[in-house]
Amino acid sequence: MIALFTDFGLAGPYVGQLHAVLAQQAPGTPVIDLFHDVPNHDIRAAAYLLPAYARGLQPGTVFVGVVDPGVGTDRPAVMLHADHRWYVGPGNGLFEIVARRAQVCEWREILWRPGRLSASFHGRDLFAPVAAMLVRGVAPESRSWTPAPPGGAWPDDLAEVVYIDRFGNLLTGIRAPNVPRTARVQVAGHVLPHARTFGEVAAGEGFWYENANGLVEIAVNGGRADHRFGCTVGAAVDVIFV
Amino acid sequence: MIALFTDFGLAGPYVGQLHAVLAQQAPGTPVIDLFHDVPNHDIRAAAYLLPAYARGLQPGTVFVGVVDPGVGTDRPAVMLHADHRWYVGPGNGLFEIVARRAQVCEWREILWRPGRLSASFHGRDLFAPVAAMLVRGVAPESRSWTPAPPGGAWPDDLAEVVYIDRFGNLLTGIRAPNVPRTARVQVAGHVLPHARTFGEVAAGEGFWYENANGLVEIAVNGGRADHRFGCTVGAAVDVIFV
Amino acid sequence: MIALFTDFGLAGPYVGQLHAVLAQQAPGTPVIDLFHDVPNHDIRAAAYLLPAYARGLQPGTVFVGVVDPGVGTDRPAVMLHADHRWYVGPGNGLFEIVARRAQVCEWREILWRPGRLSASFHGRDLFAPVAAMLVRGVAPESRSWTPAPPGGAWPDDLAEVVYIDRFGNLLTGIRAPNVPRTARVQVAGHVLPHARTFGEVAAGEGFWYENANGLVEIAVNGGRADHRFGCTVGAAVDVIFV
Repeated sequence: MIALFTDFGLAGPYVGQLHAVLAQQAPGTPVIDLFHDVPNHDIRAAAYLLPAYARGLQPGTVFVGVVDPGVGTDRPAVMLHADHRWYVGPGNGLFEIVARRAQVCEWREILWRPGRLSASFHGRDLFAPVAAMLVRGVAPESRSWTPAPPGGAWPDDLAEVVYIDRFGNLLTGIRAPNVPRTARVQVAGHVLPHARTFGEVAAGEGFWYENANGLVEIAVNGGRADHRFGCTVGAAVDVIFV
Repeated sequence: MIALFTDFGLAGPYVGQLHAVLAQQAPGTPVIDLFHDVPNHDIRAAAYLLPAYARGLQPGTVFVGVVDPGVGTDRPAVMLHADHRWYVGPGNGLFEIVARRAQVCEWREILWRPGRLSASFHGRDLFAPVAAMLVRGVAPESRSWTPAPPGGAWPDDLAEVVYIDRFGNLLTGIRAPNVPRTARVQVAGHVLPHARTFGEVAAGEGFWYENANGLVEIAVNGGRADHRFGCTVGAAVDVIFV
Repeated sequence: MIALFTDFGLAGPYVGQLHAVLAQQAPGTPVIDLFHDVPNHDIRAAAYLLPAYARGLQPGTVFVGVVDPGVGTDRPAVMLHADHRWYVGPGNGLFEIVARRAQVCEWREILWRPGRLSASFHGRDLFAPVAAMLVRGVAPESRSWTPAPPGGAWPDDLAEVVYIDRFGNLLTGIRAPNVPRTARVQVAGHVLPHARTFGEVAAGEGFWYENANGLVEIAVNGGRADHRFGCTVGAAVDVIFV
């Protein structure tokens, strides 16, 4: 199985072109549109989303991850083998948190290049073909690689809003199993208690809960947390232990 | 074939996770993204949209229907067998109109539960796996069930705007074959005649027509009906018989 | 392979219904969502986008192209065989530029009609079934056809913004290989130099480049060109040769 994780958005021709390449080069392989609207060019937010949303996919899955504002510069193309899954994409920090949390992992720099490589769409021209090779059991030319530490300190959990969904819920980069249910979560000056699910709080009340992918998520029962708390991606989130 | 009918929106990771489960548990089965942006949490609007958009799919299709504001509460999980199609989802009224219009139907409450069930994403953890079982010919544990009548009176046809599409057209919950072509349709104080298609009215004129799925739909030739008439989902629509 | 190129948007039930028909009538054939949000009803913009985004798909691909404001009127249904690919859709100019640039092409008017043809959704009822026939090697009833010239003069390259993508980049209808790298591009009074890629210009600077599909595209490094230059689809673009 191949899973796509990008900031392309579903609109426009970008996702379709990835699918066209994969249908041609890895025929018969299911290709899952896992996440296509991680915040534009926000490598760090994406890095904390990826392990949460990748973990449900079966061993052997090949992820094509593209959040790549540096496309066309000399940032390397990489592939990461982590806990029996492959991650193919730019070597810009996007796979940093997946690697950090993996029990076993190995980085490779991709040296293989296609006959024609556009300056701006390596997802289509380079990463998708490499993913197709991996699915077919072909090893693209590569060499051992060690990532530079990403700029700034990247914490183990990112205490920020990393995504806002269609319902206005605020996803954070904090792993919920690490947070006791007695803790409160503060965002934009509002201190919110835990609830297991929407039905446990009164209509209009804000709360935090462990979302279905193990992240701390902030919501309002019957409302939109983004509007209520005036939040956008990047807003700071504090966990207040009691 | 499996068809998905949800209010998840296409953005975010929700639809992709359904596909990932189905690709793993019902490999080789086509999975159709039939409708993913029915109005958020609007069970009633969705209940009138579903039969119109389900009818074109072949017998044997399994629908996963998720408009589920009560996820995580004690609302039951159900499956409905209606006119040779299965509908799997919450027992909250979503399948009420499909059942009411079916020639033959049987309700079952789903008792099977997965090893891990999140509090907030039964679409992925419960309904999609059940759909995969049905496709594979496996009967999930279940028992006979009778739905409670939905809150408030649900009419045979819903004389409201139930969806606004990309072109600004207003879809209603009224079945058009029941409406004579001499009737006029009133929305937001505007009384509109019937036309068979856009080309039959002058540019800028509003009209109603039978859409390609048998619903009364309100449109403006060369314009947006939602802007022209200041309508949102839930706006009342009156049929004026002449 | 079948590729879909429409102005339906991804929201709503329209794309899903195309997929449902194709899954039933051309089972096993990969169906690619190549482009679904070309500007609404903008046949001309779409006509210049199509050849750029079609060219990467392998010979034998059948395109279903639907930008069809005249659906339900007497505009013909056509299929174009051009450079070993089929294009199925309305005979309204949508395939004009593909045909003009093809080395070999043949137009056919589609005479076949389905048992039930809605007035407003020929994509589902007529074009998708014809595409499925072509994939199955069945020739739908048709006759030779010659397109009328489209209204107004359609140039070889369209010096306008034809699409704005998720990142705010402005795609034009100008083929970049025809434009020397010393040329400047003017949009909304701003004169912009060429760069090969984003990393070659300073943050916040505008430039033009050859996008991954061979079109002149206008962008701002680290910003949105649509906001910066106040542009919408249809804005004039001038190439200034030095």
